[in-house]
Parts: sequence; structure tokens; C-alpha cells
Amino acid sequence: MRISELSAASGVSIPTLKFYLRKGMLERGDVTSPTRADYGSDHLERIALIGALTSVRGLPIARVRQILAIVDGAHDDPVDAMGRAVAALPPYDNESQSDDDSDALDATAAELPRAQHAARALGFAFDPAYPATRQLEAALEGLDNAGLPWNPDVARRYRDALVPLAEEELAPMDTMTPHESVSYAVLGTALYEPVILAIRRLAHRDRVVDHPTGQA
Amino acid sequence: MRISELSAASGVSIPTLKFYLRKGMLERGDVTSPTRADYGSDHLERIALIGALTSVRGLPIARVRQILAIVDGAHDDPVDAMGRAVAALPPYDNESQSDDDSDALDATAAELPRAQHAARALGFAFDPAYPATRQLEAALEGLDNAGLPWNPDVARRYRDALVPLAEEELAPMDTMTPHESVSYAVLGTALYEPVILAIRRLAHRDRVVDHPTGQA
Repeated sequence: MRISELSAASGVSIPTLKFYLRKGMLERGDVTSPTRADYGSDHLERIALIGALTSVRGLPIARVRQILAIVDGAHDDPVDAMGRAVAALPPYDNESQSDDDSDALDATAAELPRAQHAARALGFAFDPAYPATRQLEAALEGLDNAGLPWNPDVARRYRDALVPLAEEELAPMDTMTPHESVSYAVLGTALYEPVILAIRRLAHRDRVVDHPTGQA
Repeated sequence: MRISELSAASGVSIPTLKFYLRKGMLERGDVTSPTRADYGSDHLERIALIGALTSVRGLPIARVRQILAIVDGAHDDPVDAMGRAVAALPPYDNESQSDDDSDALDATAAELPRAQHAARALGFAFDPAYPATRQLEAALEGLDNAGLPWNPDVARRYRDALVPLAEEELAPMDTMTPHESVSYAVLGTALYEPVILAIRRLAHRDRVVDHPTGQA
């Protein structure tokens, strides 16, 4: 189909499609004449994925480009690819808002005391270079600042809920090629997170409806 | 202490403190002379909480103000208060970026087909007016757009992990006053979410390290 038909089929305007093409987020169609290129269902799927990351996930375009580049890339090291994807998702480090690849991967254990301690309680390897380690440090600092509890019992609550969940989520990777598995892990991290937060918020709602407070 | 001492103790600049005072986010100190007010530990705690919501959680100031107003308010209805807090957290509705209270609470069941279906699979009451219901609809639309699975087995995976977690998280509310319980639920929702995402991201990392792919 022509770009005008691609626009109609996807609901995305032609200027936006041209922007995606210019930025390398969408592959150019097969050129059929000097003024015409042909687009197909792969392009429609790609546009839907960009829409999921921008509109639904609410990521800025620069972050979407980073994630697409990881999904499209060849990966010797899936853990490295996942780490770069995680660094492209909120919450962003105050020090690493920049768009280049220097996203502070140089955190040392001494700067991550809460995360180091928590890794033990959670049964995780402590990897100060993995971006989620810094994100955990910041999240635990937030609990501290707000006076909300974090202790071994609380850690166990999250470990017991989330480690079996993570295992189930990634089990399909065992039968995938490295390229497929990186794409699955990266998009799964980005797009199931809002599902998880919405379900937890709804579970809280139902819990409060079922156990009203107000005796005081 | 004077505002200069409050600034030194909190690490927040005097202009920023004055901004918080002007916006009603921070209570004015006890006035001890026409040019001097006295601040105490309550103010320090409040500044730390604002820091947790802005720096750590990354919320825009307008959203922090909304959340503080809910925490500070008197509540006849904790579910309503939690709903308004949830609407002040990302992901934001495209239609409700505005700062007023009209945050589209008029979604109808017909506009939320995925969430209505999912509520059944998750064992939740379906409440189209609760903001997290719209957030779930958008999140499930994102999975659809990216071609990621959502079916009864996947729903069960998240229900089994998150419903018992939500129950444990909110159990302390049973012995709180309504005001305490709203504050606990609202701040807990805002500030444990980054903890949950970081732990899940680290669990994924450990899972991939333990089960490397790459046979293909």
C-alpha cells in the first residue's frame, strides 16, 4: 500500500509517518517508482508497536527510539540489552537524562547501600552496573524519605510475589533465539509494567471496598 | 529553626522552599516576628516527602500538589480519595492531562471492553469510574498493539502474584483511622510502585543470567 493508505490503515498522520521514517524508527517501503514506496503488514505492526510505546506507555520519542534500536539490534549479551532497555524506561536517573549511551553505568557499590542490602534480602546477585540496581536504590530512598517501611519482612513480601512472576514471564524465552528473546524481554518489561500497576491499583480498590476503615 | 536553617537541614534551596510555601505544599512556620518564622521537624518530614514524590517518583509538581492535597484532606470516602490519587500517577490518560478535577471520570463500560473482560478474569469488581480501570484498558491495548499475549492464563499469573501482595500491603489499614489509612494507601501506591518495578527488573536479570538463551 502507499503511504496515504498506510496512514489510513494505521490512523497515524502522514507527517508523523514521515517523521518515523526519517528517524529510522520505521523501515522505508519497497521503492516502486521515484515518488512511490510500497508498505505492508510489517509496517502496520511496527506502527502499532510505536503507538504502544508512545501513547500507551507514555515514553518520549527519544526513549522509544532507544528501545526500538535494542529490539532491532544483534545481541551477544541479552543481559546487556535488557539493561539498556531498562535504563530507557522511567524512573530516570537525575544524572542520566541525556540521550547518549553514557547513561551513568559507573555506579559503585558504595553509592548503592540500600540496593546492596536489599539484594541480599531479595536473594539477587548484586550488580551495581545494572540500571535497575540504581533504580532500586532510588526507590528505597523514596520510602525512607516518606517514612514508609522497608525491612526484611517487607522485602520478603515483594520477593515472594515478584520472583515467581518474573520466572513465569520469562519462561517462554527458553525456546527462543537470542534475538527473539531480547525483543520479548524488552517489550514485555515495557508493556506489562502498566498492566501490573493497574492490576495492583484495582486490587487495592477492591481490598478497601471489602474492608472499609472508619471506626475512628 | 529559621528558613535558612531549614534549607541547610533539608538540602533544599530557599527559593524552592518559598515556592512550596506559596503553593501551599508546605505549611508556614510559626511567625515569631514580622520577618521571621520558626520551622520544625514536621516541616523537614514534609520536605522529604515532597522530595520522594518529585525526585524519586519523578512526578511533576502539579501532580505532587494533587497528591499532597489528598493526603492532607478529610475523607468521607477512602475509595474516592485513592481513585483521585491513582489518577494523579502515571500513566496519564491522553484526555486528562489537565490539572483540574474534571479528569474524565465519565468512562462508560462500552469504552472499556478489555478492562471489563479482564476484571472478570482477575476476580475484581468492574468499576468503570475508577481511574485504574481506564489505566488497565490502556495497558491491555498496549499489549494488543505490540502483539504480546493477554489471555486467562496470563491474567491468572498476575492475579496470583498481585492480589495477595495488595492484601498484605493494605492489612495495616485495618487498625488506622480513615485519615491515616488514606495517607498510607496513597503514599504506598505512589512510592512502592518504583520498588516493585525495580525488583521485577532485577528478577528478570537474574533469571536470564541463570538461564542463558543462545542455543539458536
